[in-house]
Order: sequence, then C-alpha cells, then structure tokens
Amino acid sequence: MPLNLALMLDLLGVFFFAVSGSLLAARKGFDLVGSVLLGSLVGLGGGVVRDLVLNAGPPAAFSNPVYMLPPLLAAAVVYFLVGGVERVSRLVLTFDAGGLALFCITGTLKALDAGMNAAAALLLGVTTAVGGGILRDVTANRVPRVFDPQDLYAIPAFLGAGLATALWHLGWLNLATGTAAAVVVFVLRMLALKFKWHAPLAARSWASPRWRRR
Amino acid sequence: MPLNLALMLDLLGVFFFAVSGSLLAARKGFDLVGSVLLGSLVGLGGGVVRDLVLNAGPPAAFSNPVYMLPPLLAAAVVYFLVGGVERVSRLVLTFDAGGLALFCITGTLKALDAGMNAAAALLLGVTTAVGGGILRDVTANRVPRVFDPQDLYAIPAFLGAGLATALWHLGWLNLATGTAAAVVVFVLRMLALKFKWHAPLAARSWASPRWRRR
Amino acid sequence: MPLNLALMLDLLGVFFFAVSGSLLAARKGFDLVGSVLLGSLVGLGGGVVRDLVLNAGPPAAFSNPVYMLPPLLAAAVVYFLVGGVERVSRLVLTFDAGGLALFCITGTLKALDAGMNAAAALLLGVTTAVGGGILRDVTANRVPRVFDPQDLYAIPAFLGAGLATALWHLGWLNLATGTAAAVVVFVLRMLALKFKWHAPLAARSWASPRWRRR
Repeated sequence: MPLNLALMLDLLGVFFFAVSGSLLAARKGFDLVGSVLLGSLVGLGGGVVRDLVLNAGPPAAFSNPVYMLPPLLAAAVVYFLVGGVERVSRLVLTFDAGGLALFCITGTLKALDAGMNAAAALLLGVTTAVGGGILRDVTANRVPRVFDPQDLYAIPAFLGAGLATALWHLGWLNLATGTAAAVVVFVLRMLALKFKWHAPLAARSWASPRWRRR
Repeated sequence: MPLNLALMLDLLGVFFFAVSGSLLAARKGFDLVGSVLLGSLVGLGGGVVRDLVLNAGPPAAFSNPVYMLPPLLAAAVVYFLVGGVERVSRLVLTFDAGGLALFCITGTLKALDAGMNAAAALLLGVTTAVGGGILRDVTANRVPRVFDPQDLYAIPAFLGAGLATALWHLGWLNLATGTAAAVVVFVLRMLALKFKWHAPLAARSWASPRWRRR
Repeated sequence: MPLNLALMLDLLGVFFFAVSGSLLAARKGFDLVGSVLLGSLVGLGGGVVRDLVLNAGPPAAFSNPVYMLPPLLAAAVVYFLVGGVERVSRLVLTFDAGGLALFCITGTLKALDAGMNAAAALLLGVTTAVGGGILRDVTANRVPRVFDPQDLYAIPAFLGAGLATALWHLGWLNLATGTAAAVVVFVLRMLALKFKWHAPLAARSWASPRWRRR
C-alpha cells in the first residue's frame, strides 16, 4: 500500500479507538483532559507497544505529531455531540470494533514491513489491536473487554491479522483488499456482539462462571 | 544544564514520587518490600517509559544503579517517620506534586537532548510526569488521580513541559530558569488542589457525573 | 549455560507462569481465548519488559514463535485437566512459584549476557520474575500478589537473582548450579507460603493494616 493510504487507515483506527476511550471517559464522569488522555491511551497505546517491540526508533505516535490529532478530535466530538448516557455502551463497542478491524490489519503490515516473520507479524497485529483496549479498561479500573466470556473479541482480530499476512505474502495487498479485510473483521465483530457468539470457557468442567459483566 | 545538576533534579523527582508511592503502600497496608516496589514503580516508571520511547539504549533507571537509592530512601523515611493515617492522603498529593513538577521539566529536556522535535518532547515530558502516577494507581487498583474530574493534574504538567521546551529553544535554560519553571508547576498544582480548580467534563450535557473519589 | 538449555529453562518458566494465568482465567470465568491471552501476558510479559529494557532487537517472545507454545499448552492443560475451583488458588500459587524461581535466574543471566552491570542485571532479573505476575493481576483487576503483606514474594526473587549474579561472576554457572539456585528459590517461596512468613509493614507505627486478601 502507498505510505499515505496506510497512514490514513492507521489514523482512522486511532480515531475510532480514541472515540471509544473518550466515550468511556464521559460515562465514568472524567473531565475533558481525562477524555483526551484516555482517548490517547487507547488510540495510541497498542501502536506504541508494537513500535517498542519492533525496536526501530521512537514510536510513530511520539515522533509524528499528526497522531495527536485523532484523540483531540475524538474528545471534541464526544464533548459536543454525545447527548445521553443510555446509548453510550453500544457506541463504545461500535467504535472499538472499527479500531480493532483497522489495527489488526495495519499492525500486521507494519510488522511485516519491518521484517518480522509471519508468526511474529500476526502476533504483533493482534497485540496492536487488543493492546489499546486492554490499557483503556485497566486504566479505567475494569476487567478488559477482551476477557468477556459472553463475547468474541480477539478471534476476529486474529482472523484479520491472518488475512493481512496472507495478502502480503501472496502479493495481493492493495487498498481494496486491505479495506475488504478490515470490513470482514468489523462485520464479524458486530455479528458476534449481536448474536452473542462466544468461545468455550477456560475450564471445561465448570458450569457456572463467576464472571460478571461490568 | 550541566549533567550533574540535571541528574540531581531527576533524582529529587524520583524521590518525591517514590515517597508518594511508599505512603500509598503504607495506607494500603502493604509491607516494606511492597513499599520499595511501589515507590520504584511510580518513581522510575515514567522515566523508563520515556527512555523506551527514546530508544537510545537501556533506560537510565536500570543502567545507573544510583536510581535505586531514592526509592530505598523513600521507603525508609515512610517506615520511620509516618505517624498516622489521617494526614497521609494530603502528603501523598504534596510529594506527588513535587515529582510532577520536576519530571515534566526533566522529561522534556531529556527528549530534546535526544533530538526529538518540540511536539514530541512536550508529549514525552507529560508522559514522564503522569506515567509513574498512572502505574502507581493502576497497580494499587484504583482509578488514576489524573482522571479525577474535581482536580487539575495534567494541565500543570503540560504547562511545565511547554515552559521547558520554550526555554530550551530560546537558549535561556539554566539551573535558575529550570527550577523556576518547576516551582511554577508545583505552585499551580497546589493551588489547583486548594481551590478545587477543575476542567469541564468530558461530555458537555451530563449534569451529574458518576465518578466517585476513591 | 549452553543456549538450548537456557532456552528450555526459559520456556519451562513461561509454561509455569502461563498455567497460573490460565488457572486464574478459569477461576474468573474467562473463556478459552482469554485463557490463552492471560497465560501469554503473565508468561511472556516479564520477559518482554526485560527485552525492551535491554534494547537489543525485538523481544524473543515475538521474534521466536516457539514462545507461543507454552501458553497454548497451558490453556489446553487447564481446559482438560482442572476439575474444580476449590484447589485452584493453591495451584495458581504453586505454578507461579515455579515461574518465579526460573525467571529470576534466566532473567538475570540474559541481562548479564547482554552486558549489563551486576546491579542492573539483578534488578532486571527481579523485574522479569515479578513483572508477569503484576501484569496478570492488574489485568484481572486485583491487587498484585507481590503486594500481599502476609506473604514473601519479591525477596526469594531477589535472592535468586543475587545467586545467579554471583554464580556468573565466579564462573561457576552451569546447568546444575543454575537449577539448584532455582530450586532454592522455589523451596523458599513454598516455605514462605506454608509458614506465612512476611516482611514488616511499610509504616512501623500502624497496628492494623487495611489490606484485605482478595
């Protein structure tokens, strides 16, 4: 993919995740500064972890100031446009799904471009995609969404990272196929939410999990 | 600034933050080892994240053993001198403000010295200043102070990082001006605490935040 | 130590910690994906932090796919073999002690091999050993075990890291002495659990800690 398109998709992913962070900040009663910080943490955190692992100079989120724009924009959008608390949980999950779909693709491609092998790239793509959300939820003092047993969260990200790895190795990667892969991940994630798809529990023999949705 | 003075200010910042961590450890009923660990985490955590981002060799906190002294000293001070629980919350905030004031300056200067641009240096200064406190609060399982909507925390750090960037670019930086900038941040932070200054909430239209002080 | 033996001991440590993570996932009612993720976080997290600090290329956990096997195996073992919730807390602590014992040795040796000084290597060994467990507990939203005042956790790790540093500098390090050091740490940790050894509290004068075991 041309560099600018890759950057645009990455910034769009940052924006989606940042909106989910700012919405959570609003729901928790944080102030505007907390909204920018939580949005930055979720939007940029996964990518910073990825870039630290790649070990190829300072992370893009710090060296390229344009990465600060999506979190600022997200905080402004939430400040001016969010009308009430009732629809927020659903909105958080929708924007989170958008970020997840874009980041599992862009994260995998950045790792492949940096020369990592296919398995490492797949892992880094998933880390980029789920890392920001884990940081967001841990910071806001709740169990990370990715551990919700009533939900599929990491599996669509794994699928997207696998698709991106396959497209890259086959030489079929372009804006259309990359975007199509992200759309597949997003649709799968939203269907999982709607139909409450879920994976088996961690221990086969326990009937009633102690986990509670928070 | 001469290297030794910069190191002294940095170590003083580590000590202030470490005292805030050890005081929190005392209040939570942790033991002496936990006191050293939590003090190290808050005193050194922000700087380690900064040095990882700068990607210029192992972080100073690990490569230079002198950085272990302030957390050990802080744990000893808290062990021998803290008399009762009633004044501790206030003391935590005062030492935390001292660390915040020094780290937003020293963190920004380290980033500038490492060749980062002004926007990145400002961001890294704020990350250094608020990072340790976020690690401290997340580890002690409470919502980080920086998200308290009844309080200004990140804004004084932003101001200090901005002052440091300006002084550095104007060539006016020396021990006197650097210390003056830190004092401004500290005073601003203490005034914000005293007069309960705060920023607008993350969502304009919500009257009653759900956030509770913990 | 020959490279392959060091890798085997490291992978065994990853497996022990991953089992503790997957057991916690089971107890919390997470699903299988959450079990793999939490196992990976605790098994690989400490080592990733160590490798980031060493700043010598991408962390082994990402660049060498073999590191994904222990978390997958651990999740499978917990899925098929764990029969009930009653013994799980004890099992978590036993496997956690195995990981702690191996990681404080292997972490210290990796740091020494990378050219760090003795103090830094000791610190990195302890960071490797306690880092994964802190990540596990913070992510599962509970106060990290290392802060439990009724327990000794970090001190056996410090002792193991000190033993490894001494053996390395004396040139006495081989598979037998390295394993013996790990066994000493493990036995010490289990004795501390059995006899409820503990360190003094963080503040001398407070009689009744507010801390509660969770």
